[in-house]
Amino acid sequence: MITIVVGTNRKNSRTREVAQYYQNLLRQEKVESQILDLSELPDDFTTSALYENTGKNPVFNALRTTVERADQYVFIVPEYNGSFPGVLKAFLDGLSYPSKLMHKQAALVGLSDGIQGGALALSHLNDIFSYLGLNVLAQRVKIPLMKKNFQDGKVTDDFINQLLREQAGLLARSRLFV
Amino acid sequence: MITIVVGTNRKNSRTREVAQYYQNLLRQEKVESQILDLSELPDDFTTSALYENTGKNPVFNALRTTVERADQYVFIVPEYNGSFPGVLKAFLDGLSYPSKLMHKQAALVGLSDGIQGGALALSHLNDIFSYLGLNVLAQRVKIPLMKKNFQDGKVTDDFINQLLREQAGLLARSRLFV
Amino acid sequence: MITIVVGTNRKNSRTREVAQYYQNLLRQEKVESQILDLSELPDDFTTSALYENTGKNPVFNALRTTVERADQYVFIVPEYNGSFPGVLKAFLDGLSYPSKLMHKQAALVGLSDGIQGGALALSHLNDIFSYLGLNVLAQRVKIPLMKKNFQDGKVTDDFINQLLREQAGLLARSRLFV
Amino acid sequence: MITIVVGTNRKNSRTREVAQYYQNLLRQEKVESQILDLSELPDDFTTSALYENTGKNPVFNALRTTVERADQYVFIVPEYNGSFPGVLKAFLDGLSYPSKLMHKQAALVGLSDGIQGGALALSHLNDIFSYLGLNVLAQRVKIPLMKKNFQDGKVTDDFINQLLREQAGLLARSRLFV
Repeated sequence: MITIVVGTNRKNSRTREVAQYYQNLLRQEKVESQILDLSELPDDFTTSALYENTGKNPVFNALRTTVERADQYVFIVPEYNGSFPGVLKAFLDGLSYPSKLMHKQAALVGLSDGIQGGALALSHLNDIFSYLGLNVLAQRVKIPLMKKNFQDGKVTDDFINQLLREQAGLLARSRLFV
Repeated sequence: MITIVVGTNRKNSRTREVAQYYQNLLRQEKVESQILDLSELPDDFTTSALYENTGKNPVFNALRTTVERADQYVFIVPEYNGSFPGVLKAFLDGLSYPSKLMHKQAALVGLSDGIQGGALALSHLNDIFSYLGLNVLAQRVKIPLMKKNFQDGKVTDDFINQLLREQAGLLARSRLFV
Repeated sequence: MITIVVGTNRKNSRTREVAQYYQNLLRQEKVESQILDLSELPDDFTTSALYENTGKNPVFNALRTTVERADQYVFIVPEYNGSFPGVLKAFLDGLSYPSKLMHKQAALVGLSDGIQGGALALSHLNDIFSYLGLNVLAQRVKIPLMKKNFQDGKVTDDFINQLLREQAGLLARSRLFV
Repeated sequence: MITIVVGTNRKNSRTREVAQYYQNLLRQEKVESQILDLSELPDDFTTSALYENTGKNPVFNALRTTVERADQYVFIVPEYNGSFPGVLKAFLDGLSYPSKLMHKQAALVGLSDGIQGGALALSHLNDIFSYLGLNVLAQRVKIPLMKKNFQDGKVTDDFINQLLREQAGLLARSRLFV
């Protein structure tokens, strides 16, 4: 079971649509997945689920448990201000300590309206996951120029589709430690 | 007028104490400053002040205006999970577009209990400020081992104090563009 | 006097052509500049000018002196393997210690055949310059898709030209510390 | 067979001593390894083995073949000017294209006299390996304060030893794709 994280709390985001598209790619690899959308986060989680309130918000706890039970992840990450959405990092800041992502595995996908495709966002996130002990697949896939490359719920660019299928295939066949 | 940003929304944080210490250093340089503490952020700002609600939360707007009117900044940034607090980035995600930080100037200070002093946090933040057009002083100051190096509201390590004074002095004497 | 560094030792590189183009932009700002091309590096500088041989290679020393006497820099940096050319960093590794770039100022330009324009190269380089005390202008300019965007010695894309002119103008008007 | 890369061309480096220490750790995991020391690079490789001379230097080619035949790597990386040695990147710039490191696996170890342990060096290198398709273990091990923590060819700090043994063990047990 792979968990696909929608890396923004924006409602009805294109990021979510990309997550659904990725779920289809995983289905073709015969792998089950579930989507965790950060728009489900409680409105006040940055105070009600952090610091002295860690563990006290049941809605946050449910999302946290979903993430922490998984073994593999796909993070779909829109580019906000040259990096990832702050909300995604705030969510990670509310996870259990010590990290329950340790020795697990993630694949990263970056989205942008501009031409970067979240290159720096994925670099920064890779550093954070390294800190948390979460192994990141080398192949980071970037989807730049979203308006052109993602239409009607589908990636339209052949090369990007090939990269996504390769990444999904690697994730499906990965067995990190034996 | 320099704005010192307390880069976490944790209540009564040591980060705030470091901000107050820095304010004293600036006073010795004959420079006025004000402190903006992210603990003043509305509990629900990640929904009430972002996306379709941009500009609609008066408490958030007041903080935003304070930041956007300033010309120089000091960001005091605790290390959370190998980077900056997600809340700091979420605050930046709620600022005006296009960026009103353009052509202004910032100094970065990182804090950690461990030995890194937020090295990666400051690198990530520098990338984001580059995107926003905010010039960052080369001298990033790191305060690692906070329990040892920061006691009773004061930095106890001589070398770190020297670095902080140099940084404060550079900020005070900077006139980026003429 | 601004020094424009050609960030690769490849002979007759397009990077050099971009440096010449940038020199013209600076001329329009009424600023003198000189070009330092890393293709002038001695073939064996990674042994004859580093470690126990620091300072012993007169050709390397001459290039080093040229760089260290300048106050402002433009680094033109092609993307090699997702970052800057190793040779550029090896050249920086041979500069004097302590850093004579301290408190000076640099502008960064990234080049690539692909769509990144050296985004990560410039981020990595900014970290290194921060270590060396060299202040980096927030505006990092990226020239992706070089075959399309740089023809006959000229940047053909209007928006990239605008960004380059803005950057050159900022550099010309900067007076960091007074 | 794991290849341990000594990430500097300095002769008789402490980096090499750390590589030998790591080789012992791998032996305890019942894994064979070989050391590739960048001090074996030809003096003029930055011209004789790059660009129009790619593939023409037999000494460089032999080192390249050694690296490209391996399936797993440990990179021992001293901190130079806030990042990795330029020579290490120049060596990577001379490898075959397309990358023969694709779908393989690496572990990173950073060394420094200061307190960073090469934190930024390993972050930058992780980005480059991501570009080359080389999967990097999440656990980056840092050895700061080398004079204190590495004496007589041995890591003296218990916690760093534990981290190194964990990393070596993970590498020994990894089977990325099945």
